[in-house]
Amino acid sequence: MPDSRFFSSAGPFSLADIAAIAGVAPPEAADPGRSFADIAPLDQAEANHVSFLDNRKYLPVFEKSKAGLCIVHPDVAERAPASMLLLQVDKPYRVYARIAAAFYPPRPIAPGISPSASVDASAKIGGGTCVEAGAVVGAGAEIGERCVIGPNAVIGPSVVIGNDCRIDAGASLSHCILGSRVIVYPGARIGQDGFGFHPDPEGHLRVPQLGRVVVQDDVEIGANTTIDRGTNADTVIGAGCMIDNLVQIAHNVELGRGCVLAAQVGISGSTKLGDYVFIGGQGGLTGHLTIGTGARIGAQSGVMRDIAPGETVGGSPAVPVVQFHRQTTAIAKLAKKRAPSGDR
Amino acid sequence: MPDSRFFSSAGPFSLADIAAIAGVAPPEAADPGRSFADIAPLDQAEANHVSFLDNRKYLPVFEKSKAGLCIVHPDVAERAPASMLLLQVDKPYRVYARIAAAFYPPRPIAPGISPSASVDASAKIGGGTCVEAGAVVGAGAEIGERCVIGPNAVIGPSVVIGNDCRIDAGASLSHCILGSRVIVYPGARIGQDGFGFHPDPEGHLRVPQLGRVVVQDDVEIGANTTIDRGTNADTVIGAGCMIDNLVQIAHNVELGRGCVLAAQVGISGSTKLGDYVFIGGQGGLTGHLTIGTGARIGAQSGVMRDIAPGETVGGSPAVPVVQFHRQTTAIAKLAKKRAPSGDR
Amino acid sequence: MPDSRFFSSAGPFSLADIAAIAGVAPPEAADPGRSFADIAPLDQAEANHVSFLDNRKYLPVFEKSKAGLCIVHPDVAERAPASMLLLQVDKPYRVYARIAAAFYPPRPIAPGISPSASVDASAKIGGGTCVEAGAVVGAGAEIGERCVIGPNAVIGPSVVIGNDCRIDAGASLSHCILGSRVIVYPGARIGQDGFGFHPDPEGHLRVPQLGRVVVQDDVEIGANTTIDRGTNADTVIGAGCMIDNLVQIAHNVELGRGCVLAAQVGISGSTKLGDYVFIGGQGGLTGHLTIGTGARIGAQSGVMRDIAPGETVGGSPAVPVVQFHRQTTAIAKLAKKRAPSGDR
Repeated sequence: MPDSRFFSSAGPFSLADIAAIAGVAPPEAADPGRSFADIAPLDQAEANHVSFLDNRKYLPVFEKSKAGLCIVHPDVAERAPASMLLLQVDKPYRVYARIAAAFYPPRPIAPGISPSASVDASAKIGGGTCVEAGAVVGAGAEIGERCVIGPNAVIGPSVVIGNDCRIDAGASLSHCILGSRVIVYPGARIGQDGFGFHPDPEGHLRVPQLGRVVVQDDVEIGANTTIDRGTNADTVIGAGCMIDNLVQIAHNVELGRGCVLAAQVGISGSTKLGDYVFIGGQGGLTGHLTIGTGARIGAQSGVMRDIAPGETVGGSPAVPVVQFHRQTTAIAKLAKKRAPSGDR
Repeated sequence: MPDSRFFSSAGPFSLADIAAIAGVAPPEAADPGRSFADIAPLDQAEANHVSFLDNRKYLPVFEKSKAGLCIVHPDVAERAPASMLLLQVDKPYRVYARIAAAFYPPRPIAPGISPSASVDASAKIGGGTCVEAGAVVGAGAEIGERCVIGPNAVIGPSVVIGNDCRIDAGASLSHCILGSRVIVYPGARIGQDGFGFHPDPEGHLRVPQLGRVVVQDDVEIGANTTIDRGTNADTVIGAGCMIDNLVQIAHNVELGRGCVLAAQVGISGSTKLGDYVFIGGQGGLTGHLTIGTGARIGAQSGVMRDIAPGETVGGSPAVPVVQFHRQTTAIAKLAKKRAPSGDR
Repeated sequence: MPDSRFFSSAGPFSLADIAAIAGVAPPEAADPGRSFADIAPLDQAEANHVSFLDNRKYLPVFEKSKAGLCIVHPDVAERAPASMLLLQVDKPYRVYARIAAAFYPPRPIAPGISPSASVDASAKIGGGTCVEAGAVVGAGAEIGERCVIGPNAVIGPSVVIGNDCRIDAGASLSHCILGSRVIVYPGARIGQDGFGFHPDPEGHLRVPQLGRVVVQDDVEIGANTTIDRGTNADTVIGAGCMIDNLVQIAHNVELGRGCVLAAQVGISGSTKLGDYVFIGGQGGLTGHLTIGTGARIGAQSGVMRDIAPGETVGGSPAVPVVQFHRQTTAIAKLAKKRAPSGDR
């Protein structure tokens, strides 16, 4: 059960309510008014809880679960305990996410500007938006409706933020344009000058960075992640991208729609990603590359060449994943062969 | 000599005082009232300074040192210069740390709440605690005694902090419970939602993150490190863990007691570490792994499988360290063999 | 064209003005009073724009560009379109950087202390300096002339900052001395205690960190980068170093002049770099190493031994770059050879 100090339940919900969220009819024999108090994992759930099964690995747990209601794929329905009600759907985890969000919606926003916030007189703040304690909003900034600007966050001059955005504690934005429903986690840094200079023994000389960061709708940017603005063109984060913590995105990088970057990924300047590119944790990409739509780049990979659409790569330097596994196997065998007496 | 602008000496201390801190008797022939003004490295120490020898590599420096008093292991005592007094102990570095802390204790806390801090009326602040300028403490938060909440730090609603904790400048905490004597360095981010969503071309859908971060006693969390809260269960940091800067700890990770994570380590979701696990800088662990007590994971390792207790691994993908060194040697030889004419 | 919400042009400039910035005479046949309104990339430039060519790869674009004035190397001058005026210089990109900076100078500083900043009465603030909203300046701190202390930045007690420095939003400094013309990007953490403790199953014991961070003139420190202070000696960042985002620099590290560290680099304790060392993104160095002047360390390298001056290394563990490429090739061949039937 979520700690009630941090999470407020909007439950209970009736079976009919939950089925409606899931987009399916309630089980025929069941009482549509039956009440469910909470959500819970399969192994902890009781008769008045909603649970889900998304991974066949957990079938044994499922078969013994006491959950009163479970979200499942039709393929596993016949394995359910007799006492369990089922809502059968194609994507159980996705449906569960919607039900969990119904039980535990985000805290309601308390609109208004904290007396300890510093909001420039020329800034525009939309209706229903909350600017929390210590936040700073610069001259000419425009913030949409129903946003939360977290404690001690900094919104630079002329920054534009759409509707229903959340900028968390201590994050800072400058020289950027955000769409709607964007979440910027604590301490993320967006829009500062990129790493652009003329290197020279007589002294490196900074080149003015005159572009912006454009963040499209429905993007999440993780805690302490950094996204530099472009040099002449913009750095662009496509709609629906999910960016984890401590990620580095350099100047002029462009991400297509729905890309997923795990923690500590680094992308060097001017590299362009297509849509739905996945990059595992600590993966690194050099500059000026083109990564095709649907490419998958393994954790800790070091990508130094263009990647074709749909290709999966691993290793440093990165190679197609089948080759990477062959290399790993070949090295292991080579080392074994040499181990007994091969040390000449 | 430490810069007196930043560090205030509580010295001088007498030989008797220092011996008492070390937990040993002063040398018999010496005047227990003899005064020592400061601590210093062997090569810079004078007659009124305390120094230490912990590494036999520095024996030549030790033999020529002018330090008046030195903390040493009994094994090396006979190598000391004639004029040097010795305190012989089993763990010289550990004893030196205590003496250094006596000479240079933390600045005393000036209890009270800065007029520019924003502390919610429902928050509880323990006696002797200081809330510095610009800090924000949310509704229902509970902070223990003798804590320092640094400038512009943010303590979220309902967060609980034990006694004698230090939350440094610009750090932010939410959805977490901290024990006592915890240090959170500047810019660390604890308790934000983890990277949990249902990935789908129709749009990734966030899954509510309904757990917490639980940080046990005597933990240190480095600058700009990020620790996400759990999805259903908690993310747990065991007592006495030392976590360096820019480390990523994902949702539902559990660390046992006394783990040491060097800078830029990344641990993916739901991985569990036993006690006293050491991970070198930039090491990465994928999700859902079990790492045994006392395991050691080399710098830049990429761990993709469970690690047995006490095992030492290196490389990416990580293998037992002996095998890693064999692989490195085998590859070097292979490349040499092929270099002259092997490029067929 | 830069977005005028974020960037204010100081243009137009005359040909004579621009030639003066470039340090060359204007073309003989041209009107020195001819006006140029803006800068632009070759492919977007119009007749009243200044552009540049620095990379022969773009010669085809150059030959078709409509730019009225272009900064080029004499070697390519004869390839210019007939209508294009040229300023011929040895380092076109460097000269372009100066011209771009003339067109788009930094926003003028509005001197003064924001009413929402917290500046200790004993701090000294130089003439022409701006302390922005929510910034905190501790007791005894000394800030030079014409500096900008950004919103919610924290300058710790007794910190010294030279002239013409910029400390961006949310950054925090303690126990450090900065030279002049230093830029600290948002969220950077400078001067906190390093990762120094006596590891022991009975409990790790922190060792007081009694050194400082010394940052010389003309250094840039990237967003969310962390630099720990020294244990006894200082951590030193040499003049003119360029440090990208999310870099970790541990206690007692010393960087010579003009080093360039790309994003997510990590340098362990007490490692010393000479001058003009370049380290690629995500490169890692273990502790107590000596890296010679002019060494180049590839992206994602793992350096575990000293590097000679001028040497170039790659791989993890890092080896000379020629050997690294041989190894990569040898492994690829080995895997190919074994692939068909070699899986014994």
